[in-house]
Amino acid sequence: MINIGILGANGYTGEQLMKILSTHSQANLEIMSSRSEQGKKITDVYPNLTLLKNKTFSGLDLDALSKMDVVFSCLPHAASSELCSKLYKTGVKVIDLSADFRYKSLDIYQNTYKVKHADPELLKTAVYGLPEINREKIKKSSLIGNPGCYTTSSILPLYPVIKEGFVSSSGIIIDSKSGTSGAGKKADIALNFVEVNESFKAYGVTTHRHTSEIEEVLSLNTDKNVTVNFTPHLLPINRGILSTIYAPLQKQVDENEIYDLYEKYYSNETFINITKDLPQIKWVTDSNNVFIGFRIDKKNNLLIIISVLDNLIKGASGQAVQNMNIMFGFDETTGLI
Amino acid sequence: MINIGILGANGYTGEQLMKILSTHSQANLEIMSSRSEQGKKITDVYPNLTLLKNKTFSGLDLDALSKMDVVFSCLPHAASSELCSKLYKTGVKVIDLSADFRYKSLDIYQNTYKVKHADPELLKTAVYGLPEINREKIKKSSLIGNPGCYTTSSILPLYPVIKEGFVSSSGIIIDSKSGTSGAGKKADIALNFVEVNESFKAYGVTTHRHTSEIEEVLSLNTDKNVTVNFTPHLLPINRGILSTIYAPLQKQVDENEIYDLYEKYYSNETFINITKDLPQIKWVTDSNNVFIGFRIDKKNNLLIIISVLDNLIKGASGQAVQNMNIMFGFDETTGLI
Amino acid sequence: MINIGILGANGYTGEQLMKILSTHSQANLEIMSSRSEQGKKITDVYPNLTLLKNKTFSGLDLDALSKMDVVFSCLPHAASSELCSKLYKTGVKVIDLSADFRYKSLDIYQNTYKVKHADPELLKTAVYGLPEINREKIKKSSLIGNPGCYTTSSILPLYPVIKEGFVSSSGIIIDSKSGTSGAGKKADIALNFVEVNESFKAYGVTTHRHTSEIEEVLSLNTDKNVTVNFTPHLLPINRGILSTIYAPLQKQVDENEIYDLYEKYYSNETFINITKDLPQIKWVTDSNNVFIGFRIDKKNNLLIIISVLDNLIKGASGQAVQNMNIMFGFDETTGLI
Amino acid sequence: MINIGILGANGYTGEQLMKILSTHSQANLEIMSSRSEQGKKITDVYPNLTLLKNKTFSGLDLDALSKMDVVFSCLPHAASSELCSKLYKTGVKVIDLSADFRYKSLDIYQNTYKVKHADPELLKTAVYGLPEINREKIKKSSLIGNPGCYTTSSILPLYPVIKEGFVSSSGIIIDSKSGTSGAGKKADIALNFVEVNESFKAYGVTTHRHTSEIEEVLSLNTDKNVTVNFTPHLLPINRGILSTIYAPLQKQVDENEIYDLYEKYYSNETFINITKDLPQIKWVTDSNNVFIGFRIDKKNNLLIIISVLDNLIKGASGQAVQNMNIMFGFDETTGLI
Repeated sequence: MINIGILGANGYTGEQLMKILSTHSQANLEIMSSRSEQGKKITDVYPNLTLLKNKTFSGLDLDALSKMDVVFSCLPHAASSELCSKLYKTGVKVIDLSADFRYKSLDIYQNTYKVKHADPELLKTAVYGLPEINREKIKKSSLIGNPGCYTTSSILPLYPVIKEGFVSSSGIIIDSKSGTSGAGKKADIALNFVEVNESFKAYGVTTHRHTSEIEEVLSLNTDKNVTVNFTPHLLPINRGILSTIYAPLQKQVDENEIYDLYEKYYSNETFINITKDLPQIKWVTDSNNVFIGFRIDKKNNLLIIISVLDNLIKGASGQAVQNMNIMFGFDETTGLI
Repeated sequence: MINIGILGANGYTGEQLMKILSTHSQANLEIMSSRSEQGKKITDVYPNLTLLKNKTFSGLDLDALSKMDVVFSCLPHAASSELCSKLYKTGVKVIDLSADFRYKSLDIYQNTYKVKHADPELLKTAVYGLPEINREKIKKSSLIGNPGCYTTSSILPLYPVIKEGFVSSSGIIIDSKSGTSGAGKKADIALNFVEVNESFKAYGVTTHRHTSEIEEVLSLNTDKNVTVNFTPHLLPINRGILSTIYAPLQKQVDENEIYDLYEKYYSNETFINITKDLPQIKWVTDSNNVFIGFRIDKKNNLLIIISVLDNLIKGASGQAVQNMNIMFGFDETTGLI
Repeated sequence: MINIGILGANGYTGEQLMKILSTHSQANLEIMSSRSEQGKKITDVYPNLTLLKNKTFSGLDLDALSKMDVVFSCLPHAASSELCSKLYKTGVKVIDLSADFRYKSLDIYQNTYKVKHADPELLKTAVYGLPEINREKIKKSSLIGNPGCYTTSSILPLYPVIKEGFVSSSGIIIDSKSGTSGAGKKADIALNFVEVNESFKAYGVTTHRHTSEIEEVLSLNTDKNVTVNFTPHLLPINRGILSTIYAPLQKQVDENEIYDLYEKYYSNETFINITKDLPQIKWVTDSNNVFIGFRIDKKNNLLIIISVLDNLIKGASGQAVQNMNIMFGFDETTGLI
Repeated sequence: MINIGILGANGYTGEQLMKILSTHSQANLEIMSSRSEQGKKITDVYPNLTLLKNKTFSGLDLDALSKMDVVFSCLPHAASSELCSKLYKTGVKVIDLSADFRYKSLDIYQNTYKVKHADPELLKTAVYGLPEINREKIKKSSLIGNPGCYTTSSILPLYPVIKEGFVSSSGIIIDSKSGTSGAGKKADIALNFVEVNESFKAYGVTTHRHTSEIEEVLSLNTDKNVTVNFTPHLLPINRGILSTIYAPLQKQVDENEIYDLYEKYYSNETFINITKDLPQIKWVTDSNNVFIGFRIDKKNNLLIIISVLDNLIKGASGQAVQNMNIMFGFDETTGLI
């Protein structure tokens, strides 16, 4: 059993972490801090988390947190790195769900997020927590930058086909659609039921921050200069992301060869499912699974890939727990479905 | 053609008024005031209202409003009566969509809304704007208290059966379910898509303000002392109310007699439809219609009535326009479906 | 580890059983039969059930089923009792999710379901599988009639207050609202997305079959002649039931006394939560929990109770697994949250 | 006033036609035929259409239909052309909402729809009913092939920028998302609420029939050989289409120049709105409007265009009425918002 703290536990990723960890056989949820909910019972805010009925949101206590085995940070970027840096230096393992430790390049981070990084040196130390690509590094790491939701749904399907030269590293279009929990838990008329329900829209077109994360991670891992257009949309559902990816083919391949390539990379991965049908969001809701399906458009020489995941699980808290499992030598699927 | 002003035009009832009046053959939408949106084009806030693309939200200008033929107020209670009182005294006709002029009893109003009324004398003058009951008074009135949404869905089905003694005037239970636009347009996490979607809840149990409005209006119009339990719920849909009403039968009647009673009261009413099937919310969305269906539960000696209406139309803005049509001698259905 | 068979595994309750049992530490899912899906892989029909990726829907094989430790039947009524009767007589434990073994009175069953019962003698043997009321009988039983979803949401909150004479045993009104999965998985235009979404309706008014089940179970367990009006409605959500129950108070009690009564009956029950707030459906989605909240309406002398549960879990498959856990001496919460 | 018949009036496009035409000042809805609903009152099937409460679905009577001024066909392809051909030859004007008269090339039609065309000669006579491109031809035509919903949402934004050489005529990607009414009204488990709600999927990837319609219409009207990838998705909403279009830029232009180009083509079009913000589906629900917004992605040299429309109105029945208005010399906006 390990002792666990969560920073900023009151939002949707915090809720999901608490939900997963409250049934995790190796986890002892010790500290759940939240400035806004400090002193309230967890079940006053999330009555559904009945297993935590005796627990309370605490205030921020770095000293107590430093005695944990691992701390998850669900704080917003900038605020997160400042506290994660301090905690990391006390020797506690840190898994940061913000963007602050996802980048290797300080410039790209700062250009993307328009803030100064609290501890740029740590960018070299931190490991990008995508287990299917970085498992060995994660094992030895004490500081994880947990990937973004859109990013995970883009990188996992693109990594094998770019790396093996099946598709071009430029001219790639990622048209993503996310459930509304991806926007976080905040009072904002634009997120009201009446505004979102029975509607659909694009947002952040040409400017969304996950673009640079996708490009940097894919470039570093494929040794190519990857550029993408990433266009997110807001779905009137609670959770789930579907990304439709259009990638220019560079090789004469048929669908069987692509299937075999994905199997080569992912057949041993519990949470990645390659499918001959095209996946739907309902296949992954409430699970840590990713499904990847695809078609070749011969006329336009395109590989069209469809990936789905749950933005709060494989796109955030589930992946964070998967990283924790790896870091502590637990079975990687403990607590996850 | 008449000139029209709207106070507090930026919310959902204001939007709906603008939508209806922009296609109304006798209406010239002249002033749409909004403190929060002042100076913005209507279509910057509601791009769907393309017919108003040259119009702008103005600030509050009582002098200009007093030159209109009629002013609708979509302001909240208390604020509304203060301005409506001033406007009414300039001679302009006023239709107030707040609760401020719905009551005859100052005590009941003040006990219900916990505020002092700005002009209690006017409660005697104001007419409760439910055309199917008060049409003749509305014709001669210059000050209308436009009924609440839940209230309309409760009074219209109960009025004939209480008045004729088919059901008891006490022991009535009204279990109502409303779409989320009924909560208004405001930033509030409890109204966020993720909170409302895939859920359902009761609220205001034993304390909802519409209870006293239902009781007063029914009592005054049936000459009985009507008491009801009114329990509202929040539906994960944009618009529409369904009320399930349980009323103890007082007479040995069969369903045909009840049907005939409703037909006697409402067969000449364009917007009231008595149905042998049980109505659904989708029958009334985007229209000024009410449907009323019912069943007798012999074992429990209950009349079960189901009514449906669109909370933003017959429950607010459509009914307000219906009142306007009556006040100005237009065909009562002008601009309404 | 016990070996498990499921009859009629292809519908929504079958899917939920497979989902729960695939992570149950004591369960070996051996046979999942389905006439319509026979021969297909489970994951061809339910790709989300990735833990069952090597399993296949089989045809009906009573001999193989009789070698299981327990068989769950998700078949429709009439068909279910015929097969359950045969299986039970081979010595296998049987949990029937249909209505066929829920009644003690053959007459009430046959009047309600308009069919002849396949094995009326077994009605005496079968135990009504509501653990919070019948736990001791369930322990010793080999044939369980698993309760209906609406029924569970009605009986659990009413049982203590009727039994202790807090409320009358007649004049009770149960206004229930259920998600659409309660209607089952079948091709029917009335269940299409466009028909259900953005709408709401009552159905089965005065005629719904769960009425007689609620009345019989409450009467037998409180030694009173309980009669209720039960009125169900269709919510545009996937899963969850909220019941608003109006019961005439018989005793002068305050809310604290009612709270204490519920605590007396249910404070040791893992899956029943008594709450001072009023519960919402989202509190129970995807869990075996029930929440019960209430208010007193003094003016109308009513106790208003709100209960919520997930119709597919505590209202069907979760409760069935809870029964299985009891029958086999497992921790009652195994595999359930 | 003109007399109007509708063939196959029972589906969603038929319902929408009846709704629009029942308030159209020049329209007399005379015949609404439906094999499946023959003899039923319109309001038995669509209680919301209260203005048609005295009308009945009839069976097929070509003789009666031939006496109308115009007949709309909502029949499926193949069945539609057979009857439309007969009716056209009796001299009645025909507006066909199926695909049967949308193509100029018989080969493309037959390859796309895998049926023999009932009257290939008429392909030359028929006019593609997209008023913003073909208004003059529509005025003189008696046989209209009414465009598809996805097609309208793709052609209107692409036509100006391809024709003027701003973007390439190949390498265009159209990622479209449609509400579920686009799938029609039929019993099919895949269209059930529980299957569609809280999910999202692509379908018809590389094979959707609207691809060839988009390509043929754009090619004929721009004198270029236009090829596109068209990928549709199913949104969990009732109505509305949003298309995200990625087109390779061919000219060095900025966003102002593109805005000016759209204004040049469409500023006189009542139903086309060019917007500097990016449009959302809720802007067009229940109206005949189209909104077009766009951004330039300089890094990838792409023009990203977002268009929205209501699939049942501008994507079907509203556009059909717009065509009727043009054919009969009515104000083009009569009956439409």
